[in-house]
Amino acid sequence: MKEGLKIVLSGPSGSGKGTIVKELIKNEQFLLSISVTTRQPRQGEEEGVHYFFKTKEAFEKMIAQDELLEYACFCDNYYGTPKAFIEESVKKGKDVILEIEVQGAQQIKEIYPDAIFIFVIPPSLAELESRLVGRGTEERNIIDQRLKRAKEELALYTTYDYIVVNDRLVEAIEDINRIVGAEKLRSCHYAAEIEEIIHN
Amino acid sequence: MKEGLKIVLSGPSGSGKGTIVKELIKNEQFLLSISVTTRQPRQGEEEGVHYFFKTKEAFEKMIAQDELLEYACFCDNYYGTPKAFIEESVKKGKDVILEIEVQGAQQIKEIYPDAIFIFVIPPSLAELESRLVGRGTEERNIIDQRLKRAKEELALYTTYDYIVVNDRLVEAIEDINRIVGAEKLRSCHYAAEIEEIIHN
Repeated sequence: MKEGLKIVLSGPSGSGKGTIVKELIKNEQFLLSISVTTRQPRQGEEEGVHYFFKTKEAFEKMIAQDELLEYACFCDNYYGTPKAFIEESVKKGKDVILEIEVQGAQQIKEIYPDAIFIFVIPPSLAELESRLVGRGTEERNIIDQRLKRAKEELALYTTYDYIVVNDRLVEAIEDINRIVGAEKLRSCHYAAEIEEIIHN
Repeated sequence: MKEGLKIVLSGPSGSGKGTIVKELIKNEQFLLSISVTTRQPRQGEEEGVHYFFKTKEAFEKMIAQDELLEYACFCDNYYGTPKAFIEESVKKGKDVILEIEVQGAQQIKEIYPDAIFIFVIPPSLAELESRLVGRGTEERNIIDQRLKRAKEELALYTTYDYIVVNDRLVEAIEDINRIVGAEKLRSCHYAAEIEEIIHN
């Protein structure tokens, strides 16, 4: 069986990566890597489905025991990615999606150079602002902080392999499926097939 | 306007790359780079459509004047790719397809490192043989020569970016469209969009 892909999906807060992930994982080919966080659950968020919610102390213990692929502190909360689940899942042939904050994505590149890095961006800053306001869960000063951060993060686009502009959700999903489909055709995945053809 | 892609389509003789190209260029997004050759036209092949047919002397003059991107000698015939046409076409936003023999593809990589290298392979050597025989245009000893060459060429698969197994034509075309679609989402093509978002 061919090993699955590791797909890092990242982008500024409000770029809509969460919505994209929710849509993608309706397809059984994909499996979501569940993150650990110290932030408070938003309405409707469930433990073990959206995040593992931990105290700051518990999170820092995971860091100390090297159980995390990456972690980042963002708006005073920790976010991190447990390693074991990812590696077991790709061995089973699943394409694992890692939804990661921009800071964290940079760290993953060093550990998983074969991962595919997709940067989800909003069509404009005005649209980003309206999404953050519409969410209705953040204070105005937090929104301003996120907009400022978004500009800084957008400048990091060259560190990603692909850009997906999340204007219409259905098109963003198509783009990602196209990227994943093409990545599976990379020559590095064809050693077994070529051997088979040459020697039979 | 975004610059088009340079797509190198290569593969062993009989892999069906010619049929794939014929199908692809029905889509106006693609433009075929027409090669120069010293071999005799096969039935139905037209000057300036399938190839520019030249004498050995005329071909060697083009080499001397550095008008060719690459050239190769294959089964005692020269095949080459004129440069100017490709560069003008990508500037107009067209995706230019270069149908190149395997030897020639290696040379292009050095000149166009940003080109996309797709290796079209047959599903098996038995299938390859049956295609070469079915073509009915080659002597048996030429077919054996091509099969031997095909094995050697298949071993070069790692020098390509992508593999397309040409089993069913319609699927091979889908694979190539998927690759081209994904390549257009590469972050290196997004400098203008990101600038626009950050500064507006």
